Amino acid sequence: MKAVQYRTVGGHPEVVTVPDPEPGPGQVLLKVTAAGVCHSDIAVMSWSAEQLPFPLPLTLGHEGVGTVAGFGAGVTGLTEGESVAVYGPWGCGSCAKCAEGKENYCLRATELGIMPPGLGAPGAMAEYLVVDDPRHLVPLGDLDPVRTVPLTDAGLTPYHAIKRSLPKLLPGSTAVVIGTGGLGHVAIQLLRTMTAARVIALDVTEEKLALARTVGAHEAVLSDGAAAGKVRELTAGLGAQAVFDFVGAPPTTALAGQLAAVEGDVTIVGIGGGTLAVGFGATPYEVSVTAPYWGSRSELIEVLDLARAGAVDVHVETYGIDEAPLAYERLHAGKINGRAVILPNG
Amino acid sequence: MKAVQYRTVGGHPEVVTVPDPEPGPGQVLLKVTAAGVCHSDIAVMSWSAEQLPFPLPLTLGHEGVGTVAGFGAGVTGLTEGESVAVYGPWGCGSCAKCAEGKENYCLRATELGIMPPGLGAPGAMAEYLVVDDPRHLVPLGDLDPVRTVPLTDAGLTPYHAIKRSLPKLLPGSTAVVIGTGGLGHVAIQLLRTMTAARVIALDVTEEKLALARTVGAHEAVLSDGAAAGKVRELTAGLGAQAVFDFVGAPPTTALAGQLAAVEGDVTIVGIGGGTLAVGFGATPYEVSVTAPYWGSRSELIEVLDLARAGAVDVHVETYGIDEAPLAYERLHAGKINGRAVILPNG
Amino acid sequence: MKAVQYRTVGGHPEVVTVPDPEPGPGQVLLKVTAAGVCHSDIAVMSWSAEQLPFPLPLTLGHEGVGTVAGFGAGVTGLTEGESVAVYGPWGCGSCAKCAEGKENYCLRATELGIMPPGLGAPGAMAEYLVVDDPRHLVPLGDLDPVRTVPLTDAGLTPYHAIKRSLPKLLPGSTAVVIGTGGLGHVAIQLLRTMTAARVIALDVTEEKLALARTVGAHEAVLSDGAAAGKVRELTAGLGAQAVFDFVGAPPTTALAGQLAAVEGDVTIVGIGGGTLAVGFGATPYEVSVTAPYWGSRSELIEVLDLARAGAVDVHVETYGIDEAPLAYERLHAGKINGRAVILPNG
Amino acid sequence: MKAVQYRTVGGHPEVVTVPDPEPGPGQVLLKVTAAGVCHSDIAVMSWSAEQLPFPLPLTLGHEGVGTVAGFGAGVTGLTEGESVAVYGPWGCGSCAKCAEGKENYCLRATELGIMPPGLGAPGAMAEYLVVDDPRHLVPLGDLDPVRTVPLTDAGLTPYHAIKRSLPKLLPGSTAVVIGTGGLGHVAIQLLRTMTAARVIALDVTEEKLALARTVGAHEAVLSDGAAAGKVRELTAGLGAQAVFDFVGAPPTTALAGQLAAVEGDVTIVGIGGGTLAVGFGATPYEVSVTAPYWGSRSELIEVLDLARAGAVDVHVETYGIDEAPLAYERLHAGKINGRAVILPNG
Repeated sequence: MKAVQYRTVGGHPEVVTVPDPEPGPGQVLLKVTAAGVCHSDIAVMSWSAEQLPFPLPLTLGHEGVGTVAGFGAGVTGLTEGESVAVYGPWGCGSCAKCAEGKENYCLRATELGIMPPGLGAPGAMAEYLVVDDPRHLVPLGDLDPVRTVPLTDAGLTPYHAIKRSLPKLLPGSTAVVIGTGGLGHVAIQLLRTMTAARVIALDVTEEKLALARTVGAHEAVLSDGAAAGKVRELTAGLGAQAVFDFVGAPPTTALAGQLAAVEGDVTIVGIGGGTLAVGFGATPYEVSVTAPYWGSRSELIEVLDLARAGAVDVHVETYGIDEAPLAYERLHAGKINGRAVILPNG
Repeated sequence: MKAVQYRTVGGHPEVVTVPDPEPGPGQVLLKVTAAGVCHSDIAVMSWSAEQLPFPLPLTLGHEGVGTVAGFGAGVTGLTEGESVAVYGPWGCGSCAKCAEGKENYCLRATELGIMPPGLGAPGAMAEYLVVDDPRHLVPLGDLDPVRTVPLTDAGLTPYHAIKRSLPKLLPGSTAVVIGTGGLGHVAIQLLRTMTAARVIALDVTEEKLALARTVGAHEAVLSDGAAAGKVRELTAGLGAQAVFDFVGAPPTTALAGQLAAVEGDVTIVGIGGGTLAVGFGATPYEVSVTAPYWGSRSELIEVLDLARAGAVDVHVETYGIDEAPLAYERLHAGKINGRAVILPNG
Repeated sequence: MKAVQYRTVGGHPEVVTVPDPEPGPGQVLLKVTAAGVCHSDIAVMSWSAEQLPFPLPLTLGHEGVGTVAGFGAGVTGLTEGESVAVYGPWGCGSCAKCAEGKENYCLRATELGIMPPGLGAPGAMAEYLVVDDPRHLVPLGDLDPVRTVPLTDAGLTPYHAIKRSLPKLLPGSTAVVIGTGGLGHVAIQLLRTMTAARVIALDVTEEKLALARTVGAHEAVLSDGAAAGKVRELTAGLGAQAVFDFVGAPPTTALAGQLAAVEGDVTIVGIGGGTLAVGFGATPYEVSVTAPYWGSRSELIEVLDLARAGAVDVHVETYGIDEAPLAYERLHAGKINGRAVILPNG
Repeated sequence: MKAVQYRTVGGHPEVVTVPDPEPGPGQVLLKVTAAGVCHSDIAVMSWSAEQLPFPLPLTLGHEGVGTVAGFGAGVTGLTEGESVAVYGPWGCGSCAKCAEGKENYCLRATELGIMPPGLGAPGAMAEYLVVDDPRHLVPLGDLDPVRTVPLTDAGLTPYHAIKRSLPKLLPGSTAVVIGTGGLGHVAIQLLRTMTAARVIALDVTEEKLALARTVGAHEAVLSDGAAAGKVRELTAGLGAQAVFDFVGAPPTTALAGQLAAVEGDVTIVGIGGGTLAVGFGATPYEVSVTAPYWGSRSELIEVLDLARAGAVDVHVETYGIDEAPLAYERLHAGKINGRAVILPNG
């Protein structure tokens, strides 16, 4: 079958032919319908050999949806041809975190060598994908697989971040979204449908702010030196009860700390290398700052339920598998509107 | 000044002239802008002398808004002429419940003889009202007092009930509202703006179901023998994660138990004398059933913030103070659309 | 191998010889070290053919611990000889509840015919037990298997009930435990180690009250007509923030309602057929009443961690597999002190 | 009356004679039984004139207990001679935070010029103290006032910090306490009585570690370069679910970040000028870092309930009012064991 692989450190994604995979006992074979192209792939491909936590070649694609094409011995509860989404952050299934479905925080993944598809295990950017356990699949039903595939990461990650702050996003509260790209643009929609909070979006161009308004931001503010003052003004001087930073670079993490209200949350989602210094006097009273990773199994179910209700919508551009290298190139150049999706069997 | 009083057991509300009240130390005098006419007043006026927990005559009105007309010694932080809403369920202010603002559950109110205005203390259905402490006031700012006054009870009560269930009203969940009158009709709006849950409204006439749809219910179902089956069907057999019963009569409380999903909430708000029998096998696994009363101080602030955001709207009919007896008559006859509001100085 | 089976409706447990089981793909074979004898088995054996939700014969034992004796294809992460406890309330592993580890509330178990070992699937009261998935095993490490086996139900069930009420069991609060037998006697220990609440135990004999005091109850009160008054007196008239009813019969559920404080929890764990009527005026303000079932996977991990810390101790009487019928007889006659445990290979 | 005052920037506390205060309307006069001597007073007295947020002279003492000696017009619910503790972080009583009893985070205190006694308003280190509102008093009942007075800050502050982390301090979890002095030494006791967590104490001398063990720490570890490794070892490599840093200096805040487990909490209570940099890769996944301030009204009630149950015990040294300067001197020199308490009328 064809697969999009990252083969040598510093190289570019290549379309290659690899043997068709077979599902072992307890495993599921998917015919891949769609696979998302994600910024974090580009980050991974910029790492040195020392930084890379897995061997090459690697079939890319940590966002995947497909149809059940077969399964190994011992698998029950699935129907061939069924449309499913892949929960990506695989864990051991048994530790204290996995027992709550938080496989993204599996306590034994490193020890057991478990890695997510497309980030260590063979990913979804191929005609077929082997999923290690049926618990890592969520039925899609009638959901459009192509528009849904980005939700497995670009939906799940902001959803998880927002869910943490729901108790603080009561009526009268304000949520700030820094960075209105792939994840941020979904976050705005999630906040609008799940809370009564006022949503203020921050980004660096008027074009991005226009998109933020289109997807529901009440206010859209240029992320410049005046931003903190404007957010304070919009919140009667109090600041925001929750700040979500989807950039995570030094200027945005510092800004996030200035925007938070007393007892507010700052959640750093972006992996831009920034940090926020927390301490008495350094941040407002009891602002709680954290940097999460992806989301849990039940949260993916909830995100897909939101999509089913029509409450989130991701703009996608589709590419055939042979065009995958082009899609990465365009993403790297900032030319993708919304999310690029590869259709390996399309 | 003029006041609407309930003067003798079994009698009707009367407009009488009483001395103008004076605020004592720590108290606030309000010139009443508007006072809500509530079903529970009618319930109180149906009680026998033995049941009545306070002496007559009683100035009615437990929903009130006004402008600050004066205050006693020791009051700070208020401005004369300021528009404020009254938090009704007064407590001692110091016990463990009051220390969290849950004055509706004050542990010492009975012992100290503290009663809400209009339900023991002189109420808002008069030209002037004395409020015992500035902490029982919430600034209205630019909010329209007439449309806001019902929110102090008909908004706060469903808001408190819903807030309990927010952690269960995640994407993919269903909320059922039984009874789409004064409180239920606000509850639907609150659920829509605060959660991503699907809202199913139940009532006994098509006219009421039409109103439910207008204010945002996704589904509106006749509350008859087939209702439980229809809700199960609409929820893929699972039932609702939260059921709010604003009628609380024996048929609706029993129905509520049948509509709930495993681990769901049933909240009985209506005071129609119904109960739900909870036990192993009698209700689905871990359904949590409760009957709350009114709401907390911070919740009233949150409800008014929702009104400020335009997220809740109560239909009101206004009456002068001399027409108050007529308003009660019409309410008793089921002729009020939405909420009747008295304008004592209007 | 030998197995203790319930073979005909209305019959008694019998020791029979059955074929040694083989683990299929994804399954695990345990050599059973110990299996608990539970009151609910006796309840099940009192049901009519119509009530029984599974076919006979049934190998009993829903509390089990053993050592890994083999596993089918596709199982990873286990070591032969490893000592493990069995999580009993098996579910599908994939639905929204199972995705959070709440397999006790699996949404698809009925549809897929999944039943717990000893309550539909072959149980632990045999020399060998097949467990359907490694996720249903929790490593025991150095824990004594015999004293630990009752914790998989008689520990997990009260733990789950108590965990719900932890936010209410703050300093100054009171927890009431009704019924100080198998589960109640563990509950008292859990409450003492996990909270600062004062614990009041209720039971019908002085002997049982003495046990309650021994395991840590601050107060032990005879469960008679004066009990409600005594609990009110011990709580300055306020009642208890949490009431756990491990009897669940009509007199205790009614009593539970009278003991609860405003905003308190009543949790009916016992399956004695009682219910509590909840409604406005019927129960104190916002008392929340529920009837849960067993517990979640992560909660079993937590319970075993408590045992590891020496914080819970179950008194056990051990029996060889041939004596299992005798053990059931003695349990039925109320002659077991603590918990009877069968050692199928002992 | 005599009062201990901080009179000039850079000066020392002095015992002076000032006019006896009179309670205004709504205020309460206390005859002070005991007032705590706190490190933060020494911090305040080290500030420059520019840093100081209030005018001098200032009567010290933000920890106070006394007996009701009188009250102004409009005060109800108090009895002369009643023993009460003072809730120190006074707020407006009406804003959204104060409405929940979180006066420590009052949104209007700065605007309205409201300051805590001993930190802007006249404090408890005098024969008499005027408290602005009866809601700032908690009845002591039979509690020993002298041993109780430190709980109003040195008890309430760690209690508030710990309460945040209770949902994470489940069986099997670990709590780390950095700094086992005044607050940390109370924190260990609180953790032991309120949770089943294992408590690891860190400090810099063996003498302090011995105290930590005496008050209940399961493990006591020298806070040196090897500390992080030892805590990892004690927690099977996972780290602590909650880390409380009562020092808050650069070395301890950095250490706190290294000790935390995935999804753990780090709470920086000490005001030693340290911060912890939070961001993706900088701290373990979803570690939540915050720096709170003091506690809420209901939390003080809960802390005093703990004292009533005998669950916390503060070692105190008592001084007459004329010895107050000496007490500060000894505190500054690190010579106080536990907490110094002034008895202004003793």
